[in-house]
Amino acid sequence: MLKDPAFIDRLARFMPVFDWGRRYDRDALGRDLVAAVIVTIMLIPQSLAYALLAGLPAETGIYASIAPIILYAIFGTSRALAVGPVAVVSLMTAAAIGNIAEPGSSELLLAAVTLAFLSGVFLMLLGVFRLGFLANFLSHPVIAGFITASGILIAMSQLRHVLGISASGATLPELLQSLFEHLGEINWITLVIGVSATAFLFWVRKGLMPLLLSTGMKPKLAGVLAKAGPVAAVFVTTFVAWVFNLGETAGVRVVGDVPQGLPPLTMPSFSPDLLGQLIGPAVLISIIGFVESVSVAQTLAARKRQRIVPDQELIGLGAANVGAAFTGGYPVTGGFARSVVNFDAGAETPAAGAYTAVGLLLAAMLLTPLIYHLPQATLAATIIVAVLSLVDFSILKKTWVYSRADFAAVSTTIVLTLLFGVEAGVTAGVLLSILIHLYKSSRPHLAVVGRVPGTEHFRNVKRHQVETDETVLTLRVDESLYFANARYLEDSLYDMVAARPQLKHVVLMCPAVNEIDMSALESLEAINERLKALDVTFHLSEVKGPVMDRLRCSDFLRHLSGKVFLSQHQAAQELAAGPS
Amino acid sequence: MLKDPAFIDRLARFMPVFDWGRRYDRDALGRDLVAAVIVTIMLIPQSLAYALLAGLPAETGIYASIAPIILYAIFGTSRALAVGPVAVVSLMTAAAIGNIAEPGSSELLLAAVTLAFLSGVFLMLLGVFRLGFLANFLSHPVIAGFITASGILIAMSQLRHVLGISASGATLPELLQSLFEHLGEINWITLVIGVSATAFLFWVRKGLMPLLLSTGMKPKLAGVLAKAGPVAAVFVTTFVAWVFNLGETAGVRVVGDVPQGLPPLTMPSFSPDLLGQLIGPAVLISIIGFVESVSVAQTLAARKRQRIVPDQELIGLGAANVGAAFTGGYPVTGGFARSVVNFDAGAETPAAGAYTAVGLLLAAMLLTPLIYHLPQATLAATIIVAVLSLVDFSILKKTWVYSRADFAAVSTTIVLTLLFGVEAGVTAGVLLSILIHLYKSSRPHLAVVGRVPGTEHFRNVKRHQVETDETVLTLRVDESLYFANARYLEDSLYDMVAARPQLKHVVLMCPAVNEIDMSALESLEAINERLKALDVTFHLSEVKGPVMDRLRCSDFLRHLSGKVFLSQHQAAQELAAGPS
Repeated sequence: MLKDPAFIDRLARFMPVFDWGRRYDRDALGRDLVAAVIVTIMLIPQSLAYALLAGLPAETGIYASIAPIILYAIFGTSRALAVGPVAVVSLMTAAAIGNIAEPGSSELLLAAVTLAFLSGVFLMLLGVFRLGFLANFLSHPVIAGFITASGILIAMSQLRHVLGISASGATLPELLQSLFEHLGEINWITLVIGVSATAFLFWVRKGLMPLLLSTGMKPKLAGVLAKAGPVAAVFVTTFVAWVFNLGETAGVRVVGDVPQGLPPLTMPSFSPDLLGQLIGPAVLISIIGFVESVSVAQTLAARKRQRIVPDQELIGLGAANVGAAFTGGYPVTGGFARSVVNFDAGAETPAAGAYTAVGLLLAAMLLTPLIYHLPQATLAATIIVAVLSLVDFSILKKTWVYSRADFAAVSTTIVLTLLFGVEAGVTAGVLLSILIHLYKSSRPHLAVVGRVPGTEHFRNVKRHQVETDETVLTLRVDESLYFANARYLEDSLYDMVAARPQLKHVVLMCPAVNEIDMSALESLEAINERLKALDVTFHLSEVKGPVMDRLRCSDFLRHLSGKVFLSQHQAAQELAAGPS
Repeated sequence: MLKDPAFIDRLARFMPVFDWGRRYDRDALGRDLVAAVIVTIMLIPQSLAYALLAGLPAETGIYASIAPIILYAIFGTSRALAVGPVAVVSLMTAAAIGNIAEPGSSELLLAAVTLAFLSGVFLMLLGVFRLGFLANFLSHPVIAGFITASGILIAMSQLRHVLGISASGATLPELLQSLFEHLGEINWITLVIGVSATAFLFWVRKGLMPLLLSTGMKPKLAGVLAKAGPVAAVFVTTFVAWVFNLGETAGVRVVGDVPQGLPPLTMPSFSPDLLGQLIGPAVLISIIGFVESVSVAQTLAARKRQRIVPDQELIGLGAANVGAAFTGGYPVTGGFARSVVNFDAGAETPAAGAYTAVGLLLAAMLLTPLIYHLPQATLAATIIVAVLSLVDFSILKKTWVYSRADFAAVSTTIVLTLLFGVEAGVTAGVLLSILIHLYKSSRPHLAVVGRVPGTEHFRNVKRHQVETDETVLTLRVDESLYFANARYLEDSLYDMVAARPQLKHVVLMCPAVNEIDMSALESLEAINERLKALDVTFHLSEVKGPVMDRLRCSDFLRHLSGKVFLSQHQAAQELAAGPS
């Protein structure tokens, strides 16, 4: 069966591996292997750091990068996306499971894998039912505001590791209060390590690249070296901590014992209580993760004129999360930083991800003793530098100038995320965007129009010098007519009619009406009846094809006292010429 | 100050009584008094019946008709609306307070006045913040489905009084099961009274009016007589029950002792527990009640070319409910039946309502001993006949033919209302309508257009024989561009571009685009950048005035690789003539 090409084509729709896998050659293998080595080196400190951010043992971050990468490589559609722990999802995981169990307990690990499981199942269901469009309800400003606010929360939450104190909290006030309360406990050696690492990483990001380029180094090599900054920081600080045994002599918190070996086989919990507590966060994590992942995947695909399939991406990410759930991980998604590195390093196919997984597996089996002395402050520094690049308040200015409604959505998202945490912030942002959209479409722009003299064009009487006829009222509706604005149209029209005693004809001009739903149809019927009672004839003009098709399914056209004109010009000619 | 006309005008905006009150004359007084007498007679049995439906003592219905009518007369804007207990709100009240306290307990009365208080405050807040437009999100099909399903539930819940058994339940399965279980307890004399009363009232509704008209009676008088049917039924059955003392000898349930006197002064509860349990139902009752009331008020106002002010209606209804809360009532709204009777009887101003209130007050003080023997089965019969006229499944057929989306909303509302009660049904209906609307607008109609030969018109290439140019892609978007559909536009456009290797220009034709929000703007920017990278120029055409004003507030026009053409004709001419 696997030799039947038609069967393979069908299979490839659900498992894209059967598409690219068939054409895999030695050339692609070479490029994929190189990319995998680079990404593996970068991923080790990043995975450890994000696990720390999620409040989980460091090795969880490595585990969450192995099975998910392989599963995504089988089911996902992006050629360059690298799946694993990311900053925002790690923060959301910390918020979701932090209240359920004590740090370091086995209940916490159980909650983490259960969260990944729920999230994976939810993503796969969305994919199977082709509901990927739901992610579109996260508007760009809400995402921008959310990312900025999460960046601040994440950086603040990592400050404790840089200071060597044990503050905690899921919101900005909690974090600030907790940091302030524990300020007396600062470990000065930790602080030195943390601040140096942070400063070094900032310099690598801003200053190293220009420096290398000025020495005549090729941009690509310079880029790889600049990306290796965190690895250098990890290496140096671990070495220093090992030489002086800072963990024991100076109380510097280090990663410590990390189990050496394959990722463990884990089972999610099916306790209704736990599932009930986690289902809400799982849904949010899934959607946020999906949006982040798809944005990254689309950006990278576009550069090579490739396409990704959002509904299949849901299946890929869902499988990755289910994989994380059964191998001791926590929720994962496609990350920006790791994917860009993968792409820049020349990854040709998802197989690069699989080789990365092998690299991480080797690291989990062999290298974990080496990171015993890695200071947590160094990991915190890598997170801080990474997330602060996400913090960008320019969206506030852009939306303020362009659209106050979007400004309201983005500022609400930022403020609520900081004050009440990521879930509250993003939920409020999405609901507010939808409400604002509904509110705007519930009060559509209505323009009384007249003829531009000497032409066949009809324009708003308030914006243009036009000719009107006091026996004819022509009203252009600049919105689809549906339940939320049907009554507004009725009200506005009755007011206009009441103010025009000479009126004989009302023409509703519909060039921008893309739909008339049942409620709006009933409003039009009511308008028709009421105008009939006032001896005013009701007409439509410039109704679109699909809308007209729909109206023909109803009685409306049969009861309409006037006509449906193809163009407003015809309407004006006929109504002016005919008997009033 | 009350003599300063400007002050009175300002006052009249918030208390319309100062508007019509100034012009009140003897003529209006006469007509209002006649209307008040007719309405009072009709309201007595109706108010008792609805209290019974709400699971409250009969006198509560009378109390809920006195203060609310007067307060609405002061603050409301409709001239003919009669405020008081109505069927659907009574059913919702029963559902809301039924689980909180035992029937007949003082806790139940407390819950009822608290519900009225919350509902009143919520309505007033909506009015003060001018949020009346929120009611528009109840689409016509959802309302129609909800009313039909509630009618069935109400009729089923009254069956027990007709059968003389003690069934209960808030959903159709519960009611059916409970009726079936208690079927053995049928009181046959009650059944005879209930069935006769029901049959009589149906005959009055359907058969009496034609009969009276055929004897040459004037339609108006015939109408009043037909409306008096319930009064006759009440009179006859009470008389029979009194003569044979059916309450004691035959176990026929009668209204029994009703306190004689003024409505009591009551206080709502401020217990956080109770408020927490009631706030959800109060919000739904308010919105449903408001929608019902405004529909009735608008229908009646239109007949006299008067206008009502929805936001002021909220204040009026809110005041009425607060009034009900402090005088032993329960949630009220403007009812269809009572308002139509009021209108038909010639009510000229809201003063008619005030006289009705006086009539009911007199009834509460003097007539209550007379209704001791009134069988509950008679009241149930008046409710059954009234609500069955609301049951109308034709909306299912209408929406099925016209719009499957509306059909989905209405059938969901009906099924969920019957299976899970009124709150679940209406909430699901509203959410589903909104989701369907959002889904539709998230996948807008996109048409590739070409020129109709020999004209300046551009039409869909799929619907018309048109000319196209393989170096120019002209895409018409039939929807405003906003966050929910921005990505869909991007995806679709990239697919089209990928399929046209010869492409040099893309023109986005925007005659139906009424808004471009920040997310859509960013998508347009992304499209522009991506097309630029492919050496394809991006243009817009037929952008509306307000949308263009908005675009000028952003950088988009400055970065746009192509032009913004006033008409698609210009675009086609220039792009065909210019160098490719």
